[in-house]
Amino acid sequence: MKYFMPVKVYDEDDAVKNHASEIASYGRKALIVTGRSSAEKCGALADVTDALQQNDTEWCVFSQVEENPSVETVMKARDFGLAEGADFVIGIGGGSPMDAAKAIALMMHHRDCGADRLYDASLSSEALPVIAVPTTCGTGSEVTGVSVLTRHEKQTKGSIPQRIFPEIALVDGKYLKAAPMSVITATALDALAHMMESALMKAGTDYSRMAVEQGLRVWARSLPVLEGKRDAAPVDFANLMRASTFAGIAIAQTGTSIPHALSYPVTYDMGLAHGRAAGYFLPGFLAEAPEKDREHLLSLAGFESLASFTEFVHRILADVHIPMNTLERGFHMVGSNAARMNGCIFDLDEAGLKRIIWGAAR
Amino acid sequence: MKYFMPVKVYDEDDAVKNHASEIASYGRKALIVTGRSSAEKCGALADVTDALQQNDTEWCVFSQVEENPSVETVMKARDFGLAEGADFVIGIGGGSPMDAAKAIALMMHHRDCGADRLYDASLSSEALPVIAVPTTCGTGSEVTGVSVLTRHEKQTKGSIPQRIFPEIALVDGKYLKAAPMSVITATALDALAHMMESALMKAGTDYSRMAVEQGLRVWARSLPVLEGKRDAAPVDFANLMRASTFAGIAIAQTGTSIPHALSYPVTYDMGLAHGRAAGYFLPGFLAEAPEKDREHLLSLAGFESLASFTEFVHRILADVHIPMNTLERGFHMVGSNAARMNGCIFDLDEAGLKRIIWGAAR
Repeated sequence: MKYFMPVKVYDEDDAVKNHASEIASYGRKALIVTGRSSAEKCGALADVTDALQQNDTEWCVFSQVEENPSVETVMKARDFGLAEGADFVIGIGGGSPMDAAKAIALMMHHRDCGADRLYDASLSSEALPVIAVPTTCGTGSEVTGVSVLTRHEKQTKGSIPQRIFPEIALVDGKYLKAAPMSVITATALDALAHMMESALMKAGTDYSRMAVEQGLRVWARSLPVLEGKRDAAPVDFANLMRASTFAGIAIAQTGTSIPHALSYPVTYDMGLAHGRAAGYFLPGFLAEAPEKDREHLLSLAGFESLASFTEFVHRILADVHIPMNTLERGFHMVGSNAARMNGCIFDLDEAGLKRIIWGAAR
Repeated sequence: MKYFMPVKVYDEDDAVKNHASEIASYGRKALIVTGRSSAEKCGALADVTDALQQNDTEWCVFSQVEENPSVETVMKARDFGLAEGADFVIGIGGGSPMDAAKAIALMMHHRDCGADRLYDASLSSEALPVIAVPTTCGTGSEVTGVSVLTRHEKQTKGSIPQRIFPEIALVDGKYLKAAPMSVITATALDALAHMMESALMKAGTDYSRMAVEQGLRVWARSLPVLEGKRDAAPVDFANLMRASTFAGIAIAQTGTSIPHALSYPVTYDMGLAHGRAAGYFLPGFLAEAPEKDREHLLSLAGFESLASFTEFVHRILADVHIPMNTLERGFHMVGSNAARMNGCIFDLDEAGLKRIIWGAAR
């Protein structure tokens, strides 16, 4: 078994401010990669540009990363970054800008390569240095080498084969404050799916479980906020952000399992937020798992039973209806993927996969 | 709070064999650093040289690292490695060869610097690449940046200020098989001290506790072997080695606390094995800790009570008698070190320190 997570994590109030000179030390000019507005709204963009300015480091901003970024966007940002002469990349946002930042840093290094090389496993993982500043509490991208992009030619999403770990992750719960509650619950559900899926995979080890167990405990501290039972305090933002980082450490070791695989066509077809799409399949997935593991995971996360967990998910997803043909596409994509199907610690056949997608947990 | 542990850990049967080409990829000629005989006896040295030979990589061996290696030994090995033209360093053994390997790799990089720079914080941590192969289950040095050396001019041991993390750790329980049971119990006690001390330090975070909790659970699996209740199976060697690695991940974040600080003069004066010296003070240290934390840690490690833990330690240390003047030297060294005294999560005054050294737990 292997454990590898080389990112230096600063998880604290004012992380960017506290480590300004270290952030600036990675180059002469940063390409800052963000989504359309959230990096600005939550204050993270200003924190980063202040940090760079104080250290006489230049920057340019590419703020056109869409949710579920496409290969085309990555290539456009690569060309922009090269034209600007940037020599390191700072991704600010949820999974989309951070994942895009990794792929952009990769293609800026391989400056003469075309988009066709992005999914070519023979392309080395060498990349410009990446710094990650998460502003949602789901992806964990700040501590993984994974970059998931949308592949229009395949009508789904997929990880590029290269692994690009950020040099530093600046984890600061305060960036969550500006996020709508719907984003917080959706991304917290994504983090929960990361941990539960990781724990139920054959690829799981004592090392990945170390992150899962601690992450679930930290996540559970702020469950009442997600349930709407009390307002979020600063410590809740910090807990949810940290839980998402622990979940990232876990999936950096194991990858994800069935709910994530099923979520990709759903997000592609409907544009449904990634965390909500993965969360949709999570109760059904847990229902298939061995009782002992299920009870252990639910209890760590703060739930009394599968029923109460299912109710929690249903409340978050109340308005979600996934068209039958999308679910069927997911069923065929995942059911025909032997590595996915055989990757769980329990036996999963087509009937089980159907129960996860259409079963009693719905 | 910060989390940083960049070492790539391969924890598996035949780790060295399985990753031979990666090991060899770090340079053209390896300086292999070992103690006098254990690296050879346990088979690790042959595994490493086989791996290098298969990949046409040269090596030379420095096998003169004593227990608690001195600054003098480090400088001698540095000169040998430079004369041999080595460009990376492989440390095989317990904490002594691995810690020495880091300091040697540091001084080989800073090839024009004298021994006086080793404890000079202004010397950068740049070093030749280090690969670590642990053969005991205590130090955790394979996943920390720490190098503890003996400083004869100060009559004690101390960490150098530089942090040199290995590139890879090859963690294979089978190397424990050749070790005498006394070495296994002493080093397992060291790992336990690392975890319990880390957990009771103000420097502890959700990240360091992640490693402590998982490490204690893994350690507890093989407690019956340490208690002499059953013979060790291969899985026990793997568990004890892995627990020691988790303990290393924890102290890489927090450092160690009072029992370790007290152990250094004891080891210096008496040559008492490091794990036994640290373990000597562990029951007394736990007795001072808040009950809730103490019970939690003891329960994770598989002990019913402080009394049963104390009995366990006493059985391992039955023949240990530390001279009064050594204990008094420890009392003065640690008692006058405000950072140490104030570093615990509980209040510790001189009276408390005396109880740890001479108290009821003895």
